[in-house]
Order: sequence, then C-alpha cells, then structure tokens
Amino acid sequence: MKGIVDLNSDIGESFGTYVLGLDEEVIKYVTSANIACGFHAGDPLIMEKTVKEAVKNGVAIGAHPGYPDLMGFGRRKMDISPKEARAYMLYQLGALQAFASANETKIQHMKLHGAFYNTSSNDKKLAEEVLKALQEVDKDIILLALSGSFIAKKAKDMGMKVAQEVFADRAYNEDGTLVSRKLPGAVIHDKDEAIERIKKMVLDGKVTTIDGKEISIAADSICVHGDNPEAVNFVKNIRESLISEGIEVKSLNKFI
Amino acid sequence: MKGIVDLNSDIGESFGTYVLGLDEEVIKYVTSANIACGFHAGDPLIMEKTVKEAVKNGVAIGAHPGYPDLMGFGRRKMDISPKEARAYMLYQLGALQAFASANETKIQHMKLHGAFYNTSSNDKKLAEEVLKALQEVDKDIILLALSGSFIAKKAKDMGMKVAQEVFADRAYNEDGTLVSRKLPGAVIHDKDEAIERIKKMVLDGKVTTIDGKEISIAADSICVHGDNPEAVNFVKNIRESLISEGIEVKSLNKFI
Amino acid sequence: MKGIVDLNSDIGESFGTYVLGLDEEVIKYVTSANIACGFHAGDPLIMEKTVKEAVKNGVAIGAHPGYPDLMGFGRRKMDISPKEARAYMLYQLGALQAFASANETKIQHMKLHGAFYNTSSNDKKLAEEVLKALQEVDKDIILLALSGSFIAKKAKDMGMKVAQEVFADRAYNEDGTLVSRKLPGAVIHDKDEAIERIKKMVLDGKVTTIDGKEISIAADSICVHGDNPEAVNFVKNIRESLISEGIEVKSLNKFI
Amino acid sequence: MKGIVDLNSDIGESFGTYVLGLDEEVIKYVTSANIACGFHAGDPLIMEKTVKEAVKNGVAIGAHPGYPDLMGFGRRKMDISPKEARAYMLYQLGALQAFASANETKIQHMKLHGAFYNTSSNDKKLAEEVLKALQEVDKDIILLALSGSFIAKKAKDMGMKVAQEVFADRAYNEDGTLVSRKLPGAVIHDKDEAIERIKKMVLDGKVTTIDGKEISIAADSICVHGDNPEAVNFVKNIRESLISEGIEVKSLNKFI
Repeated sequence: MKGIVDLNSDIGESFGTYVLGLDEEVIKYVTSANIACGFHAGDPLIMEKTVKEAVKNGVAIGAHPGYPDLMGFGRRKMDISPKEARAYMLYQLGALQAFASANETKIQHMKLHGAFYNTSSNDKKLAEEVLKALQEVDKDIILLALSGSFIAKKAKDMGMKVAQEVFADRAYNEDGTLVSRKLPGAVIHDKDEAIERIKKMVLDGKVTTIDGKEISIAADSICVHGDNPEAVNFVKNIRESLISEGIEVKSLNKFI
Repeated sequence: MKGIVDLNSDIGESFGTYVLGLDEEVIKYVTSANIACGFHAGDPLIMEKTVKEAVKNGVAIGAHPGYPDLMGFGRRKMDISPKEARAYMLYQLGALQAFASANETKIQHMKLHGAFYNTSSNDKKLAEEVLKALQEVDKDIILLALSGSFIAKKAKDMGMKVAQEVFADRAYNEDGTLVSRKLPGAVIHDKDEAIERIKKMVLDGKVTTIDGKEISIAADSICVHGDNPEAVNFVKNIRESLISEGIEVKSLNKFI
Repeated sequence: MKGIVDLNSDIGESFGTYVLGLDEEVIKYVTSANIACGFHAGDPLIMEKTVKEAVKNGVAIGAHPGYPDLMGFGRRKMDISPKEARAYMLYQLGALQAFASANETKIQHMKLHGAFYNTSSNDKKLAEEVLKALQEVDKDIILLALSGSFIAKKAKDMGMKVAQEVFADRAYNEDGTLVSRKLPGAVIHDKDEAIERIKKMVLDGKVTTIDGKEISIAADSICVHGDNPEAVNFVKNIRESLISEGIEVKSLNKFI
Repeated sequence: MKGIVDLNSDIGESFGTYVLGLDEEVIKYVTSANIACGFHAGDPLIMEKTVKEAVKNGVAIGAHPGYPDLMGFGRRKMDISPKEARAYMLYQLGALQAFASANETKIQHMKLHGAFYNTSSNDKKLAEEVLKALQEVDKDIILLALSGSFIAKKAKDMGMKVAQEVFADRAYNEDGTLVSRKLPGAVIHDKDEAIERIKKMVLDGKVTTIDGKEISIAADSICVHGDNPEAVNFVKNIRESLISEGIEVKSLNKFI
C-alpha cells in the first residue's frame, strides 16, 4: 500500500443564521473539504466564507451536492430521475466553481451527500448520470465515493479519477458494504480500536468484518466529522496517529 | 451610429411543472437570451433545456440572476447587502456556467432581473459588488444594463464590456430614465410608433422624451418579451422592421 | 346505490406568478375543490383567492396537502417518517383553515396529493398518522381517499367520515387497484366509454376490470381535472350525463 | 401601575437539523412564547415540539409570523403588499393554530418577527391588514406590539386586545422609539441598570431617555432572549428581581 491517505469532512453546512458544525476547528486537521452547495445545506454567503476558509488552511475543496431538501437536510430518499440527478449535479457544481474561481482555486473532488450519496452508490442509472455530469463540468475533478461501490468502479471504467473512502467508526459486512446502523455493532465506539482499523485499512488494504473475516478494502480517504468538540478531537487523534505511523496525510490531488 | 443591434428576451423562467412564456417561439427572433438561474425563477432541468434550446437556435446565452424570492418572482425589493449581492451573483452565474459548459458554449452576457436590476442600476454599492462578481467569474462576460444607468457607466470605467439596453414600449424622461409605470403615457401602446422609436434609437442614438424633447440614448440591445402570442408577434415585427431598414440584428458578442 | 355522487378536482395549484389549471372554468362543474396548501403548490395569496372562488361558486373546500417539494410538484416519493407526515398534515390543514375561517366557511374534506396520496393509501404507519392528524384538527373533516384503499378502511374503523373516490379514465385491476400507467390499457381514452363506466360505478357500485371481470367498487366521488379546455369540457359532459341519468351531483357534506 | 408583567421570548426558531436558541432553558423563565411559523424559521416538526414544550412548562403560546425569507431569517426588509401581509398572516397563524389545537391549547397572542415587525409597527396600510387578518382568525388573540407604535394604537381603536412590549437592554428616544443600534448608547450593557429600568417601566410606567428625560411608557411585556447561556441567565435574573420586588410575572391572558 502507498502509506498515504486523505482526510475528508463535510464543511459549510450552515445556512443563513443557522450554524452547523465546528468548521473552523475541524478544517485544521483535514485535507479535503466537502462543501455544501445550497440544496441540502449551505447558501451563497456560507459557500464564499467556506471556500475562503479552506484556501486559508491549505485544504482542497470539493463539491458536496445533495437533494433539494433543506428541511430534511438531504437525508431523505427522494425518487429523482437520472435526468434530474444530472441537472442537480451541474447546477451545484457550477455554483461552487464560481466561488472557487473567485478565490483563485479549483474544485479538487466531488462527493455526494446523504441520500443522494446512498442512492447513487449502487443505482446504475443515477450513478451514470452523476458521472456524466461530473465529466462535463471538469474532467479533472476526482470522484470521492464509497469504497467498493458501483459508482466507484464505473468511474474507473470510464477513465475518471476516483478516490475510495472508508469510515473510521463503522463496521463492514463481508461484501464490503457498511453494516446497517439499525444492527448491533454497526458503530465502533472505541476510539483506539477505530484508529487501529484505519491504520490497517490504509497500510494493508484490509479490514476485519463484523463476522471476524478479513477482506480487502481500498482506502484513499477517511471520512471524518466536525459536529462537536469530541468529534474534532477524534479527527486530531486520527491525524496524529497516522502521521506517527509514518503515513502521509495529504489531499487527494497529491496522489490520485 | 453602427446600424447594428441586439434583441434580448428573458427565457427559461418556468419552474418545475409551471410553464411561463412562449420560449420556443420568441427564441426564433431574438439574438440574446437572459436565462433565469433558479432564484426568482428557473430550476436545473429548465436551465438545461433552455441552454440547449438557445444553442439550437443560435441564440447567445446570458445569466439572469434575481433575488431569492420565487414566491414574488424576484420583483419585490429586498434589502440585501452588497456582500449578499456579490454572493448571489457568483452562485447563479456559476450554476449557469455549468450548463453552458455541458452544452459546449459560454455565457455571453449578464443581465440582472426585476428588483435586483432596478436596485443595482443606481445603488452604488450594490452595483460595484455586482460588477466585481462578474469580473471574478469571467472577464469576458458582457454586462447588459439599463442605458445611461450608473452601473453601465461604472462598468465602462472599470474597463468591462458593456451593452446598454432600451425599451421599445416605454416612455423616457429627460434625464434618460424610464417614466414610472404609475404615470400616464408611460407605456407606448401603438406598435408602429414603438418601432419608429426603436429605429431612431438604433440609427440616430436619439429618443423623444415624454415632454417632447430629443435626448441622446445608447441602444446596443432592445429588451423584448415573449409572454403571449401577441408579444411574440411584436418581436417578429421589430426584427423584420429593423432588417428591412438595413439594420443588422446580431448578438452582443458580435459587436461589443 | 344512492344515485348521488360528488365531483372533486384539484384547484389552487398556481404559485406566485405561475398559473396552473383553468380553475375558474372547472370550478363551475365540480362540487368539491381540493385546494393546494403551499407545500407542493399554492401560496398564501393563491389560497385566499381560491377559497373565495370556491365560496362564490358554492363549491365545498378541501385541503390538499402534499410533500414539501415545489420543484417536483409533490409527485416524487420522499421517505418521510410517520411523525413528519403528521406534522405536515397539521401545518397544511391549519393554514387552509385560516383562509376558510376568514371567508366564513369550513374545510369539508381532506385529500392528499400526488406521492403523499399514493404512499399513504396503503402504508399503514403513514396512513395512521395522517388520520390522527386529521382527527386532531377537526373531527368533522371528511377523508377523501382512493376507493378500497387501506387508509379508507382504517378511517372507517376509526369512526371517521370517509368518501371513496374513483377515476373516470382509469382501468382497474381485479383487486380494485388502478392499473399502472406503464401498462397498456391503463387509461380509458374513449370519453363515452368513460362516462358509461362512471354511471355504472355510481348506480350499481360495479366496474369492469381490465381482464373483463365485474367487481364491486364504492364511488362517493369522481376525480376530475381542469388542466386544459378539453379536460374542462369532459367534466361538463360528465356532470350533464350524470344529471340526465337522474343522479344527483352534490358535495360530500350533503351525503357522507 | 398594575405591578404585573409578562416575559416574552422567541422560541421554536430552529429549522430541520439546525438548532437555534436554548429553548428548553429559557422557556422555564418566560410566560409567553413567540413561536416561529415556518416562513423566517421553524418547520412543522419544530412547531409541534415547541408547542408541546410550552404546554409542558405552562407557558402561553403565540404566533410569530415573519417574511418568507429563511435565508435572511426574516430580517431583511421586503416590499410586500398589504394584501400579501394579510395572506402571510392568515397562513402562518392558521398553521400554528392546528398545532395548538392538536395539543389542546389555544394561541394567546401574535407578535410579528424581524423586518415584518419593524415595517408593520408604523406603516399604516401594512398594520391595518395585519390587524384585520388577526381579527379574522380569532378575535381573542392578543396583539403583542412595540410600546407606543401605530399598530398598537390602531388595534386599541379597533377594540382589539393589545399588549405593549418594552426592551430591557435598549435605550429610548424622547418620542418613545428605540435608539437606533447604529448610535452610541443604543444598547444597555449593564445588567443591573437594565433591571432597574425594567422595574421603573413596570411599576411607574416611566423610562429615562437617552437624553436624560423621563417619558411615559406602557410595559405589559418584556422582550427577552435565549440565544446563549448568558442571555438565559439574564432572563432568570430579570424574573427573580421582578418577583422579589413584588411584581407578578404572568402570561398576557391573565391580565390583558
């Protein structure tokens, strides 16, 4: 394995007067920021501020498009058509590009949000339209997707740049999918155990499933959160543990 | 005078299942389309469809940013800050750029919508932020603004490309501003008279004010409407009358 | 059978400057109006205008709550929780009640819209929360639901007032459900045949299925549309045919 | 003076996943809650939760209608027409009434929010439409308005129930209006001084203006905030100081 990994976190999910997440804290430790684009969260002022904050901290920016459902924070499955998926992608990516351009930077990656992420991971038609839209906007944007998902494989087949992400605190099934949060053991609560799992994923490309088997897993990026002080501290610990292990923590555009 | 003029019309102001305007009719006669960007009207699917329609008809596309007020169609004055004006510009222009790029074309011009247009025409701070945003997105985009307005002059001072628009069916005051719709004689109802006025504005750079004086006016583009069959027919007549007079009807990028 | 039936139509689905449907035409022929409440369509000004129009025409008013999805016109399935379904019901019914009260009338019935209608017809948990919300707002409001649906039966079990609706132009399966629009024969295009089917449903409580069998069906109300002049004319024909057959066409509150 | 006063606070201004204000803390100390109705803040789930919380704490509920501007939190002036003001009032009051009714309580009062509050305080036409709407919804609902404002006087003239509110931490001009926040001395930062001012307003009906004069002021209710722990603590102190002074702290419906 390459001994190099990216840390990505959702950033810029505030809206108007509403503040969400400790953006200014977590941004110190991550290498890639997934920036909300105004559909599930974020608004033009927040996007402007977030892009500036990312640039200031040397963090690569990414688009984080969601469903048009602010009230449900883009977490509710909506039956959108592939054509709608494509148009929603273009709209949100374009909007973020303008803020990137105004701040003399470029979009590094694109990671879907919430229900849009879940649905497009394995729905063939949605995934294909999402990828086509991404290519049409800018062929250099890296797709950041669930490790082992259909959309990740499809993007590779299409010759696109792809980064596969893993979760520090989630258990995996034998087929590489995440154990449903409804099942016992789905979430790894022990921080040390979580960090050991990450190291193994990054260094050996392996993870132990919920049933105790060892499976292969690609880990280009680790998804982390900045919801509260404890979460931010966990991100800091992950970063420091990786570095002390000799693993480089770098943004995706440095190694994908 | 140059004997050349552009015809611009608002296009793509439908939303979801709601249809507004005879876009497919009026687009046959105009040279520049002001495309709604999802704030006062328009949505991603409509934007995609409208850009395609413009490209098919050889009509140049423009961004038509509005206030975030779908319920009021962007016609209600809102006290937005210059900072918000700038962020709303970036967001909407960027969104349209993605559809332009996906359809292998570029944004030719930017014309503000409704209350945003009115306010920014002469509010110094708003105008300046709007112009800065426009420059940051793409220095080649032409500002299409009210003839004689502060924003038009300011853009020229800043070295930007500017096109000044006139109205076929509106009376003018001596200072070049439009007569308020609340006053008698504000709207020219006689179609033939309207066409004669246009010719004079384009060929001589002059218009007769409501008080009978002759003033100078810059007329790079004529604002027309496609709301109903009669309006579309009027646009057709304007175009034919201009051409029969030897005036070239071309999109702004051909002569600005 | 009782030889009496209601004609219901969706009304007030305009939004802001956007006009949808020939409300002022179709309202002359129906007896119950399903009024959009601002989520999938409608806004406060439209609701006010629509309630006034219904009162003027002696048409009973009903709430027509939808999903919070204006861009998709409430037609896209969204995974809302039963708790959300309840809260969305309360909010939209309450809003309409204020307009009813300001116009000295009351809400006669409630019919869900689009995807909310489809999902709640047979999803037990959603249906139960919808019914609880309806009871909490006003026990006298009649539920207008798909004939034979779970929600209709459940409401009866709960001692609520229920009206079951049928469709003039749709084919039925043997179990009383509608034939999917994706299948051939799903829509009855022959107007005369459609009217014969309606008469049989109202007078005999029977309908011939797509496979030629005769099944029982409750027909308290017929769902009609006012989208275009042809549709309005069809509603007029239905009304006249029913009356000429000796069937009374009355609003639900006269006989439920 | 009556030695009795109400404490009102804005509550339920969260939206979707976004949390705003320490509602569960401040609600322990106030007597009237101004509940957001979904336009500037609040959503159906939040409204349901907030009404329940108020009922549990024995706090009277009030509607807190705002402009349809979630992105600007209803703080930006919008040029809405009197007709729109009326319709927005009916819609939002009705929506809250349904939640009140479902929780077996009633709306005690109505206080406008943000820019809607400011504009309607002294714009004659807006104020009149707001009051008409309030009367149409329920004649018993108390108007809670800026002490000495046009809308408060007008409501009294119309025979409506009116409560006039004062601010603990704001300086007053000689004509009874608030000193603009842009001017020095507009905000009283000394907590003890603020509490002394409140006592004087409640007990003597007097306040010392920014220029040192003593003017009369009606103080039926004190507007307080629960934005942060310090603010909540200040509310607690106000309440305790008033009670220790022998002043009764009761909801408006006990004495208006």
